[in-house]
Amino acid sequence: MENLGLCTDLYEFTMAQSYLEHGKTGDAVFSLFVRKLPERRNFLVSCGLETLLESIERYRFGDEELKYLKELGKFSDDFLDYLREYEFRGKIYAVPEGRVVFQNEPIVQIEGSLPDVQILETLVINVIHLQTVIASKAVRSFLVSRGTSLVDFGFRRAHGLEAGIYAARASYIAGFAGTSNLEAGRRFGIPVFGTVAHSYIMVFDREENAFRSFAESFPQNAVFLLDTYDTIEAAKKTVKLAKEGVPVVGVRLDSGDIESLSREVRRILDEGGLKNVRIIVSGGVDEYRIEEWLSKGCPIDAFGVGTKFITSADAPYLDMAYKLVEYEGKPKVKTSPGKATFPYKRQVCRFYSGGKMEHDEVVRYGEEKDGERLVEKVVEGGNLKVKLPGLKEIRERLMSDIEKLPEELKSLDKQEYRVIIK
Amino acid sequence: MENLGLCTDLYEFTMAQSYLEHGKTGDAVFSLFVRKLPERRNFLVSCGLETLLESIERYRFGDEELKYLKELGKFSDDFLDYLREYEFRGKIYAVPEGRVVFQNEPIVQIEGSLPDVQILETLVINVIHLQTVIASKAVRSFLVSRGTSLVDFGFRRAHGLEAGIYAARASYIAGFAGTSNLEAGRRFGIPVFGTVAHSYIMVFDREENAFRSFAESFPQNAVFLLDTYDTIEAAKKTVKLAKEGVPVVGVRLDSGDIESLSREVRRILDEGGLKNVRIIVSGGVDEYRIEEWLSKGCPIDAFGVGTKFITSADAPYLDMAYKLVEYEGKPKVKTSPGKATFPYKRQVCRFYSGGKMEHDEVVRYGEEKDGERLVEKVVEGGNLKVKLPGLKEIRERLMSDIEKLPEELKSLDKQEYRVIIK
Repeated sequence: MENLGLCTDLYEFTMAQSYLEHGKTGDAVFSLFVRKLPERRNFLVSCGLETLLESIERYRFGDEELKYLKELGKFSDDFLDYLREYEFRGKIYAVPEGRVVFQNEPIVQIEGSLPDVQILETLVINVIHLQTVIASKAVRSFLVSRGTSLVDFGFRRAHGLEAGIYAARASYIAGFAGTSNLEAGRRFGIPVFGTVAHSYIMVFDREENAFRSFAESFPQNAVFLLDTYDTIEAAKKTVKLAKEGVPVVGVRLDSGDIESLSREVRRILDEGGLKNVRIIVSGGVDEYRIEEWLSKGCPIDAFGVGTKFITSADAPYLDMAYKLVEYEGKPKVKTSPGKATFPYKRQVCRFYSGGKMEHDEVVRYGEEKDGERLVEKVVEGGNLKVKLPGLKEIRERLMSDIEKLPEELKSLDKQEYRVIIK
Repeated sequence: MENLGLCTDLYEFTMAQSYLEHGKTGDAVFSLFVRKLPERRNFLVSCGLETLLESIERYRFGDEELKYLKELGKFSDDFLDYLREYEFRGKIYAVPEGRVVFQNEPIVQIEGSLPDVQILETLVINVIHLQTVIASKAVRSFLVSRGTSLVDFGFRRAHGLEAGIYAARASYIAGFAGTSNLEAGRRFGIPVFGTVAHSYIMVFDREENAFRSFAESFPQNAVFLLDTYDTIEAAKKTVKLAKEGVPVVGVRLDSGDIESLSREVRRILDEGGLKNVRIIVSGGVDEYRIEEWLSKGCPIDAFGVGTKFITSADAPYLDMAYKLVEYEGKPKVKTSPGKATFPYKRQVCRFYSGGKMEHDEVVRYGEEKDGERLVEKVVEGGNLKVKLPGLKEIRERLMSDIEKLPEELKSLDKQEYRVIIK
């Protein structure tokens, strides 16, 4: 897709055409926020803004898109002309990527002519939602990782190739050491990691020949996968091969009782003089398993974190909405039960106590007095007004926020942070 | 992305280079299957094959991809030359899209030179997994929908734009009437639906002026969103406007106590002479809510099914693997605890009793005797050997399978189907 114009819901266009027909083209502000955090999230990590800005630039309509819309028979020629000329010319206010955010805090606010900002709804939610979901899940593994390395192994079970690529980005921001995903490596400069699968072991007549062959091909990076047949036997073979001079830097355990296997494999390696050989664990890894194993002192050096993180399996979506909050300078609210909104463009002010976040206040934009201001204007007149940070900078920003996060919010148990809406 | 070559995990390439260096280029068969169904799935719907075949055609390497791989410093020039020339030349055996499948049944089997088929692993799983996850979730709403219409409203909270587009495809196959997703409408010819959001109602000074304006713009398709302020009052306004001659074809309820609201709104509409006005319900809809409301007789004509279906929230992933099962004609198995595999290329034979599926047998390919054969050869020598069905045909195939599905498997309660591995 060159043009993203049709990446939207039909109703955005029926509304927009009707707005244009009824002169509803005044200045509007829409706010993207999460109403309520999932039960298993104590905070969120803002993520995806750079991707959103790129996507909005590609939010255009070419002949192919307009031909389809015309064929639908629902839209006027005037409206199709409007779309043909469409490019975003408004303002975007956003919390930068890599910040800790909470419920009811506007992550992105978009201001411009009502139809212009209305039709971006689906795109804005989709792009920010994905990376915020994944970064907010990934950071939980990072918080319990106690200095072990985490690598994204999830690409295959991400919801599509695009989801896998952006999840690699989001997880690197959230503290992962890298990814197995080569496209993400190329696109974002994220370090890439990987060794072999069971199939590699299986095509050699003997397991030790597989180990030997792989070490011949990649002497700097020989990680042996131990669990194809019998993990303990494979650990013993590793020691035997090392004594013959075969280089080995690590072993991977992908199944079985990781607690006992990791200890037993560590013992075998240590007794064989392989104290520097790292143990990497994969297969069903998430923050709950990492916490369980590391709190018991299992000798694990790195984790391949896969499916459960990349689908955010325990909270695969956020209650994220993009709501009209202001039209022609007037406040706009809906009062639907459980889905009420707060009016006006907003600033998030963060207050600290003893170096730790104490509470946030969400105030009307321009009426902020104290506290750290999280929201900044990033686009004006359709043009970028700030220098976007690189991935490493975003990651450092999150690490800095994590240092200031109250200890209880870092736990896997549910805790609430105070957000006051003024 | 023009070339999908880097849509893979690094280890596919370290393995492939090592295979080439050690002469492991014999004929291999890999099998894609689901080890175990999630607790809340009684069957799966095979989905995504056409997308996979398109993706494999695009699985190539251009200068940009090769430059990145060279810069990684891990790969030999010989291996990069191999990738430069890469195009899939092997065979693909698959269960056609839209079939009901179960645990341990090979959905896709790929045969060819070992490195050629190894490096497709990540792509094959990713593409088939997404659409199979979504179709298998969506069909559950269809099974309890009792003739009401279901529309995919999930695009905004899908895991990326691509996931939203393919989810629309998968849900249409699974019996949905259409989607709100315009790109999916254009790409796949799926019917598109949509009305207005709360923002539309909010920019007009009075709710009834919003209704009136929308009906002016779209007299054939005037669906009024009732829950922006007070659902019951809005229903009364709908009747009043209809009496003034304003056209209305439906109303939408997006929040609140749907059971009582749907009954009360129906009563108001009926008493106002609007018996033909349809009630559409959205907001948190999934198969459990549909079953609950419809089993209680709530007067609902259509559902907008969104976030929970498009993220497959109660089972966001499948335990789907792509495993080596045969190399140079010899059986290959791994014996990892809980992850054991079955050797050989396979056929799935389905046995019926009284017109209903009775059990399946997974036998060695070419050794099948009785039963309906599900697996067909779709690609040979890299070329498509069958005419791929259109979306409507796939959908009809699934409807036919659903007729033959044992009644207990159609329920939302867990039931097991017998699959015998021979």
